[in-house]
Amino acid sequence: MIYSFTKAQNQDSVALRAIYNFYLTKSTAYSNLDYLATKIGGRLSGSQKAADAVIWAKKAMYAAGADTVILQACMVPHWVRGKKEICTLTSTKLKLNISLNCIALGSSVGTGNKGVIAKVIEVKSFEELEQLGEKVIKGNIIFYNVFFNQTHVKTGTAYGETVKYRSKGASYAAKYGAVASIVRSMTSVADDEPHTGNMNYDTTICKTKITTLAISYKAADVLHDALIKDNGLQLYIETHCEKLPDVLSYNVVGQITGSQKPNQFIITGGHLDSWDNGQGAHDDGAGVVQSIDILAMYKGMGIKPKHSIRAVAFMNEENGLAGGAAYAKFTKDNNEKHIAAIETDAGGYTPRGFGVDTTNGLYNLAITWKHLFEPYLIQKIEKGGGGADLIDLEKQGVPCIGFEPDTQRYFDIHHTAQDTFDKINKRELELGAAAIGSLIYLLDTYK
Amino acid sequence: MIYSFTKAQNQDSVALRAIYNFYLTKSTAYSNLDYLATKIGGRLSGSQKAADAVIWAKKAMYAAGADTVILQACMVPHWVRGKKEICTLTSTKLKLNISLNCIALGSSVGTGNKGVIAKVIEVKSFEELEQLGEKVIKGNIIFYNVFFNQTHVKTGTAYGETVKYRSKGASYAAKYGAVASIVRSMTSVADDEPHTGNMNYDTTICKTKITTLAISYKAADVLHDALIKDNGLQLYIETHCEKLPDVLSYNVVGQITGSQKPNQFIITGGHLDSWDNGQGAHDDGAGVVQSIDILAMYKGMGIKPKHSIRAVAFMNEENGLAGGAAYAKFTKDNNEKHIAAIETDAGGYTPRGFGVDTTNGLYNLAITWKHLFEPYLIQKIEKGGGGADLIDLEKQGVPCIGFEPDTQRYFDIHHTAQDTFDKINKRELELGAAAIGSLIYLLDTYK
Repeated sequence: MIYSFTKAQNQDSVALRAIYNFYLTKSTAYSNLDYLATKIGGRLSGSQKAADAVIWAKKAMYAAGADTVILQACMVPHWVRGKKEICTLTSTKLKLNISLNCIALGSSVGTGNKGVIAKVIEVKSFEELEQLGEKVIKGNIIFYNVFFNQTHVKTGTAYGETVKYRSKGASYAAKYGAVASIVRSMTSVADDEPHTGNMNYDTTICKTKITTLAISYKAADVLHDALIKDNGLQLYIETHCEKLPDVLSYNVVGQITGSQKPNQFIITGGHLDSWDNGQGAHDDGAGVVQSIDILAMYKGMGIKPKHSIRAVAFMNEENGLAGGAAYAKFTKDNNEKHIAAIETDAGGYTPRGFGVDTTNGLYNLAITWKHLFEPYLIQKIEKGGGGADLIDLEKQGVPCIGFEPDTQRYFDIHHTAQDTFDKINKRELELGAAAIGSLIYLLDTYK
Repeated sequence: MIYSFTKAQNQDSVALRAIYNFYLTKSTAYSNLDYLATKIGGRLSGSQKAADAVIWAKKAMYAAGADTVILQACMVPHWVRGKKEICTLTSTKLKLNISLNCIALGSSVGTGNKGVIAKVIEVKSFEELEQLGEKVIKGNIIFYNVFFNQTHVKTGTAYGETVKYRSKGASYAAKYGAVASIVRSMTSVADDEPHTGNMNYDTTICKTKITTLAISYKAADVLHDALIKDNGLQLYIETHCEKLPDVLSYNVVGQITGSQKPNQFIITGGHLDSWDNGQGAHDDGAGVVQSIDILAMYKGMGIKPKHSIRAVAFMNEENGLAGGAAYAKFTKDNNEKHIAAIETDAGGYTPRGFGVDTTNGLYNLAITWKHLFEPYLIQKIEKGGGGADLIDLEKQGVPCIGFEPDTQRYFDIHHTAQDTFDKINKRELELGAAAIGSLIYLLDTYK
């Protein structure tokens, strides 16, 4: 018994070494991402580029070795930014008239050419907003000046704490009569790049929709400093975004059909859509090409999986999650059993571990593989779960897994014009793909 | 007993949290490195910039909180690159006349204006060189076309395998009558940057000194491909480097004198010198500013260390190790006892662990702290030791420790013009400094 266990474990070690060798010498993740990021570029749901990305992903999945590629239809929002936003700070007292680097938040309404001009009330929290109330706020612009807490080791924790001001800030501000709201960009780095990201008008908070945008970290410093010296200063905001009718789009699902259990699935996915201002390289082109690489691994190494293996390029993660919902519905409609679903949507950085669902026994299995990942400097098999695209699958009881790369650089460029291919390190991207490939190999072997 | 152990461990957890909070909000490592890299820049031993760096380091150490700053004299080589190197590939057969991106290796002799022109013999190893012998090699240029093995997870392993062709390649080639030798750049990335680094003429192998340089990865591809089609092609090489008389220089040692054991030392160091072609940002400005930050930590947090704590900016790591030798000699001359010496010379990337000397009981102590580092995602306390600057200290029996950051990006830019400040991520740099600060805090507390 001990002997055969050891033997199996040794076989697994040998298999993982071969898998890593494959990824570190034959992966096409980097060249695929080069195409997706630089030839297609930013690809917000509903845009022509998102449609181009669907066609590209289908082709790339067949090229990688899929025996089947399925397009799963979903209706996605079609929000467009329109003409470049304007945010101008004017203070007669300080003799200031300066343009602040800004970007409208996704789903925001636009002001059109007339713009809005008003005084600014700075707050640090929703509690402070509530205390000030309508009397102070009405007719003004709310400025949520909330910093990332730099003392968190994982930058995602800081993001989790601040993102509510981006998503709900406009509705709360409107509740008290504000005419617009702005946020300090959600970022770990003190630079001049504005970070977009989605917002939602929550009609249970307020029915009025006001325009909302993010200003860069440095612009937020400028505004904060100026407000101290002149609380009567004014901002002029002009945004031209609008919501067009929903558009038919697709998830792209590449499959290598299982040799023994074809109706049981192990999947890994990233999201194909991205914000419009950058190239969607780390968010989440990286996750898409790492997922496509699982097909290349089975094909290239000549391994026949027992279960059906899928690479999923989800549509519409950034502003609607229509793709995640469509995938979950598809699996239900087709009575597919999912053994495990992995999401890679945290950038193409050095892999650090996996967060694994604990409710289905999968975590207990995965931790027995910890030593197999040690030689590849992946030390964390933690309790956790999937990302936004897997929410509906998770609700259907599918054990979900989140791939966790190093987080230090992610929010420097997240949702900015700087999320470009030149920020990708080839080896880091490949090591991430290899970690996912290894985990899927083990799942397929032991489930 | 169990209670007090638990209590002590909790106190340590609290202390480390406070240390990390300090580094992630008050570190001056990033701004110090900005100055060292961008205002001083590349600072090869013996140069004016290296002298400027010594003056700067002294000032920075006092500013950080040193009560004493010692300059330790050492004579260092003064090698200068001179006019830009030329490496031109000419093939009448292929109608080629192209310039290859190249850089002379440190310590190489120059050809002067006359240059050398010869045919090229490509080899993959010293064994192959030996087999070809003088008959084939004499009068030609040897091209060591050896790639990094990309399958190693730590890039330093690939470097360790190939660097011998840089350091000894010229002497072995000269032994068989070659007139020059060139190497494929030691790099993980397929780009057009040539990587320099030191070489040594080993007179036990051959007394003749021939010029030697590195060509970029892409240039090496071009040369290799051209040689397949025309093995009679010629290279013209022109280098203008020369060795001037040795120069007096210094290690800079900043100290916070111990409150209980002032003649017992815990040190952390990086090297102040760098190659001349870049800014020496990751190699090893990062290590220098991380080391200086230990002074800032004790001063800024108001902690009085029991032992004397030192930040050491070693001189001449890149091409002579005179500083490392001078430091070791100084400790001997002054009968100083060193509890532990840490070296940080692997770039300012996300910290992954420490390699700790096993011969002095220090490793057994350090592994008891493993759980304290877990919350900061530092999972590896391994058997290991210090870097090049600590060789002589290690010989004197000092327990040495190597700081180990993530290695994936280091050899992309190592010894190139791309080792610049913009490649530094502030949080990664600070997390590294915090890891070192935490380890020194624990060493000071438990030794």
